[in-house]
Amino acid sequence: MAGANPAPETAYRGRRALVTGGLGFIGSHVCRRLLALGADVTAIDALVPGYGGLEWNVEDLRPDLRVIFRDLCERDAAEAAVQGVDYVFHLAGQVSHTESMTDPARDLRNNVAATLSLLEACRRANPAARIALAGTRQVYGRPERAPVDESHPCRPVDVNGIHKRAAEEYVQLYQEVHGLQSVILRLTNTYGPGQLVKHPRQGFIGWFVRKAVEGGEIELMGDGTQRRDLNFVEDVANALLLAAASPKAWGRVYNLGSSEPVSLEALVRLLLEVAGRGSYRFVPFPPERKSIDVGSVEIDDSRIRRELGWQPAVPLREGLERTVRHYERHLARYLE
Amino acid sequence: MAGANPAPETAYRGRRALVTGGLGFIGSHVCRRLLALGADVTAIDALVPGYGGLEWNVEDLRPDLRVIFRDLCERDAAEAAVQGVDYVFHLAGQVSHTESMTDPARDLRNNVAATLSLLEACRRANPAARIALAGTRQVYGRPERAPVDESHPCRPVDVNGIHKRAAEEYVQLYQEVHGLQSVILRLTNTYGPGQLVKHPRQGFIGWFVRKAVEGGEIELMGDGTQRRDLNFVEDVANALLLAAASPKAWGRVYNLGSSEPVSLEALVRLLLEVAGRGSYRFVPFPPERKSIDVGSVEIDDSRIRRELGWQPAVPLREGLERTVRHYERHLARYLE
Repeated sequence: MAGANPAPETAYRGRRALVTGGLGFIGSHVCRRLLALGADVTAIDALVPGYGGLEWNVEDLRPDLRVIFRDLCERDAAEAAVQGVDYVFHLAGQVSHTESMTDPARDLRNNVAATLSLLEACRRANPAARIALAGTRQVYGRPERAPVDESHPCRPVDVNGIHKRAAEEYVQLYQEVHGLQSVILRLTNTYGPGQLVKHPRQGFIGWFVRKAVEGGEIELMGDGTQRRDLNFVEDVANALLLAAASPKAWGRVYNLGSSEPVSLEALVRLLLEVAGRGSYRFVPFPPERKSIDVGSVEIDDSRIRRELGWQPAVPLREGLERTVRHYERHLARYLE
Repeated sequence: MAGANPAPETAYRGRRALVTGGLGFIGSHVCRRLLALGADVTAIDALVPGYGGLEWNVEDLRPDLRVIFRDLCERDAAEAAVQGVDYVFHLAGQVSHTESMTDPARDLRNNVAATLSLLEACRRANPAARIALAGTRQVYGRPERAPVDESHPCRPVDVNGIHKRAAEEYVQLYQEVHGLQSVILRLTNTYGPGQLVKHPRQGFIGWFVRKAVEGGEIELMGDGTQRRDLNFVEDVANALLLAAASPKAWGRVYNLGSSEPVSLEALVRLLLEVAGRGSYRFVPFPPERKSIDVGSVEIDDSRIRRELGWQPAVPLREGLERTVRHYERHLARYLE
């Protein structure tokens, strides 16, 4: 077991769980952890091209993992998937900010309509299921103060942020009006094995990792002083399991953060050191990135630490080492 | 000209305007006012069943009014409609709170996807168009204070409110990132000739008016003490025209309110007096209404009065008289 704050050992044993986006980066880690804890796990994934879902991500979990290759927006698929499960981990979605600006209708479908369809399915077919939503700190927009706690106003600066906020509002509404038990985690920058590295549109970390592993040159937009919180993916999966299994978490919103916010330049230097190759240089922001960049972000995650006892267990260097080693061995799998 | 604060007499002369939902209640009044001011006006309306769009609403405006019977969600329809216009008044949408809860996917399509499609069409085909969005004070949810000004937090309590807020966020984002000039008005309870009275799902006023005109019995949910601001539809149309034509309004959000918030019981008594028939009784809230009711609301509209010089010109009694007289003559048209 990784981490000092595992999800409850017993909460998931023999229970049924659905993981949407279960073949994606974080989703596959949630599946892995649930199976390790003895749950009966189903993943549903539409494998939308470019989103990061890969059968390879769960190859080590078959045949224990049941997989449904369907789109949550299809009512019958969503209802069949939620039928009889105790827990729903909602990881499916579009996460690229730049793609949400160039194809907002697609982002609307895969983040908003899909979430609504999932909640409607639960309302109709399984209102007792406990739902954990993987949200994002992007809903806050540009920080008005630091660190950003959960009471910070939500002022999204891109289409993806608007849609992720709407998804949160659905979850809160369905809890309040329809009694669905749910918890929202606002994830910050998650990294680790299984992350999409094929294109640079899903955040910078995966792309930097790939460049480092390939011994290439990392282009750092801006001056590199922007600070970010990074979470290793197993710590994030643990947080989701912990929150979904904690009755006191239902109806709550929790930030995830790290113990050590890091500047992008420091991150890149550490990454190159771990990889033992590669280089970096500064480049100006392209206009379409600058307009939706949120600047430095520092997250206050004291609520989840205090209320649920979560804390990240994998230090940045260790997490980067595990990530780099993974892609050194398996990079080709992610470029197919 | 109705009202002490008309939209600029000259701003619209010879200019081209598009009114989405132009065959609906408020949209048809916007068309009428624009035509009266010498604009070249096109309405686009999908006449979604049950939403309130009626050819009858603009019968007096033909053939001056050009009408496109298409759905904004269709990309080619939206692009063709915005082509070459100076102003876009976005009135199309689903306004029933209860329907948004029973069929949220339909509300998503007609409020969110349609707005996104319209903005994308402007971005691609006509980024110079000035856009006025008819929003709603429903985005505030249950008031945390009274009166509610524009800085009040947005905590929608139903699916419709979530979707209307997302539409606002799109408009603000497209202004900030893509430079589309826009203004948002948050309407409160609008009433007047042309309002949907066929079913009770689009707010209480239309339904009360119909009951009064028919000499029937009005069922007042709760104890009748809930207070609301009411605006006569011509005052609302004037506000939209004024805001769209005012450069200092672009990028701003404005509440509309009345000078005289009224309790629902007082409203009903006045309505029955004006109609000269009908009765009322109190009934308990049905659970599906109670769960999304926002209680008393009192709106602070001092911003639009101060910055744009708008004020409502039609007192409640006069507005109700004009409304009741309209439906006494034309009720059958609205029940087809």
